[in-house]
Amino acid sequence: MTTSELLEKAQLARQAASRLAYLSTEIKDRALKNISGSLLARQCEVLEANAADYGDAKASGMEASLLDRLLLNEARLKAMATDTLAVAALPDPVGEVFEMRTMPNGLLLGKKRVPIGVIAAVYEARPNVTVDIACLCFKSGNAVILRGGKETVRSNHVLADIVRQGIAEGGAPMEAVQFIESTDRALVGELLKMNSLIDLVVPRGGAGLINYVRENAAMPVIAGGIGVCHAYVDKTADFGKAVKIIYNAKVQRPTVCNALDTVLVHRDIAASFLPEMAGELNKAGVELRCDAESLAILQKYQGLKLAAAGAGDWGKEFLALIASVKVVASLDEALAHIEHYGSGHTEAILTADYTSAMRFLNEVDAAAVMVNASTRFTDGGQFGLGAEVGISTQKLHARGPMGLKELTAYKWIIFGSGQVRP
Amino acid sequence: MTTSELLEKAQLARQAASRLAYLSTEIKDRALKNISGSLLARQCEVLEANAADYGDAKASGMEASLLDRLLLNEARLKAMATDTLAVAALPDPVGEVFEMRTMPNGLLLGKKRVPIGVIAAVYEARPNVTVDIACLCFKSGNAVILRGGKETVRSNHVLADIVRQGIAEGGAPMEAVQFIESTDRALVGELLKMNSLIDLVVPRGGAGLINYVRENAAMPVIAGGIGVCHAYVDKTADFGKAVKIIYNAKVQRPTVCNALDTVLVHRDIAASFLPEMAGELNKAGVELRCDAESLAILQKYQGLKLAAAGAGDWGKEFLALIASVKVVASLDEALAHIEHYGSGHTEAILTADYTSAMRFLNEVDAAAVMVNASTRFTDGGQFGLGAEVGISTQKLHARGPMGLKELTAYKWIIFGSGQVRP
Repeated sequence: MTTSELLEKAQLARQAASRLAYLSTEIKDRALKNISGSLLARQCEVLEANAADYGDAKASGMEASLLDRLLLNEARLKAMATDTLAVAALPDPVGEVFEMRTMPNGLLLGKKRVPIGVIAAVYEARPNVTVDIACLCFKSGNAVILRGGKETVRSNHVLADIVRQGIAEGGAPMEAVQFIESTDRALVGELLKMNSLIDLVVPRGGAGLINYVRENAAMPVIAGGIGVCHAYVDKTADFGKAVKIIYNAKVQRPTVCNALDTVLVHRDIAASFLPEMAGELNKAGVELRCDAESLAILQKYQGLKLAAAGAGDWGKEFLALIASVKVVASLDEALAHIEHYGSGHTEAILTADYTSAMRFLNEVDAAAVMVNASTRFTDGGQFGLGAEVGISTQKLHARGPMGLKELTAYKWIIFGSGQVRP
Repeated sequence: MTTSELLEKAQLARQAASRLAYLSTEIKDRALKNISGSLLARQCEVLEANAADYGDAKASGMEASLLDRLLLNEARLKAMATDTLAVAALPDPVGEVFEMRTMPNGLLLGKKRVPIGVIAAVYEARPNVTVDIACLCFKSGNAVILRGGKETVRSNHVLADIVRQGIAEGGAPMEAVQFIESTDRALVGELLKMNSLIDLVVPRGGAGLINYVRENAAMPVIAGGIGVCHAYVDKTADFGKAVKIIYNAKVQRPTVCNALDTVLVHRDIAASFLPEMAGELNKAGVELRCDAESLAILQKYQGLKLAAAGAGDWGKEFLALIASVKVVASLDEALAHIEHYGSGHTEAILTADYTSAMRFLNEVDAAAVMVNASTRFTDGGQFGLGAEVGISTQKLHARGPMGLKELTAYKWIIFGSGQVRP
């Protein structure tokens, strides 16, 4: 693919965007239902392409956490189809009028929600992201340019085709979704210069990708995806619930950004809680990288996978069955640790104490702050947004899972009757 | 001022920000009332400093539009004091909890409004901006670093002192407002690198300043301030109202961004409307730069200041008593002209036709779209926001006047009772 072909795709997206802004909700939802149906109907085709991607990636030595993200299976495809229907069922954010007020001079004014325009998504080898992002951008009236990881280009080829066909059959312009099939990385650099055609770029992936996009994009960027997530076990925590939550947060899907990385345990309960927690995590083969105090407690137990934590084990996103563990003297120490090492993604407290819960909620500065729940819940689907374009760890515009509303902007509309300013 | 002194100011702001986030509304409002009172009580001191700034700027040959922005007088100071009280009277946005929902699994979740953190404002020689920005940032719980134009450093010195004293006397940390007194431009470059201490930079001024900040800032930028504003006079417009609005939009304060730049007139009424409009504008000495068709109509009249429009007169922000004038065949031609030449600030239609009004509101892509009202209304105070930090012409996060709410972010808060993800 040449730069001029890329430019043409961006221009097609820009043209489609002006039509998308006025598309009826009915047409958009019909297209999304088509896509959902096709994901199931064309299952064999998708899984075959994905098997080829998977085979090559495995042969090339891709690490396990990335292979897991790349993999599609029947269950995951079914989940994608369900998420797509969920997006169709959500209210259309475009056109919402809000904060209307009448001023003393009779001007009636307020805000009207509009699409952002053209969004570029640059992401790594996770084929479900192709469908999530395309569907959310489409429903929110935005055109999108998709550039997925080179290791999933065959999966993405089929998925993008499913999306585009579904849109066309729904009666909308398939140019709304542009897919960059080429795996030439230089094209991403070219894309990031096209700020007259692209309004926003969303990088989704590892730190390398995100930093590359941040440094090179001429248009605004909303980045996320790096989650160094902590769980603080307060001295009043219910042990049973706390162990269950930590197990879920670490083990249920360790390769994603909302998986747990570090457990902070209050000193008063460390000697009794840590063995219970470690025993349970050990069933899933979790390695624990412990500070001196927790190591001294856990060393007495046989068969655990333990290591002394190094400096690099704090503030680290493991993306694997590894967690770092630290004993803290107080909630304040836990808060200070999180402030220093957190990535602003998801932080959780496990407690039975009301004041500790409320302090944690108020004082932790992160996209999502949880009391007595698994960090794995930070997710567009789990938050009721249908799906997500990404999880923003920055503060401006959108924070946390980015769903339909987060993909819109607004304009002020003013109804006058001849008013002038005195 | 050295880079390390600048760094110290940024660090003080960062430290203050964590206290500001929890300041009670009562303390914040008391501080704002102090500031309002001091603006009046210390009027002579402010006006003396401003007179010195004004004298030097005039002697150095500063152009009239910039001199007008720089000037303070009793009336303007009184307006600043009133705006400050208006900010005090507005609801505190911090802590607002919204979009709460209970999920089927029992998780109670939603969003809580929080300050952004530390905001840097880089602006040109408009001393009122010092007070507007400081008060809005303070009320919204943000620390701010102010860097105003070098031509108003004496005015700003007094104003920043009034603000800081008012804050301290209200019982809050005066470090919340940092003022860079040095006029060394290289310091702005240093400031823009401090992304670990500064969360957002707001450049407010001309295109040169905005582009410099956009290109050099390592943190997010919300830019605005360039307003190429159009008024489209539809064939159904009420002539009396339309002339009054155009006169107001062009003449009432020509040196600001929401002043009118270009008038588009429907061909069906051009021959009758243009002379009426030109006659009125001529009373204020407005020069009209006309396309061939409007020139042919207007040059029959004596005493008008007319010129043939050059290519550079479309899409130009005049900031002076100059307007460009063009005859268009239809609403569609007006919309196309505005799409091509507009800066996304404020656009207005003057019409008695419902369908044209609604099409214009829907189809124009700008921060503010008006029917039958002066473009001069795009202003935080006029929109009921108290004041404004700037007028964003970009789409993300905030569009149009940025008041208190636009200076906040949110975090997701999740109340669980032991939930794990299946």
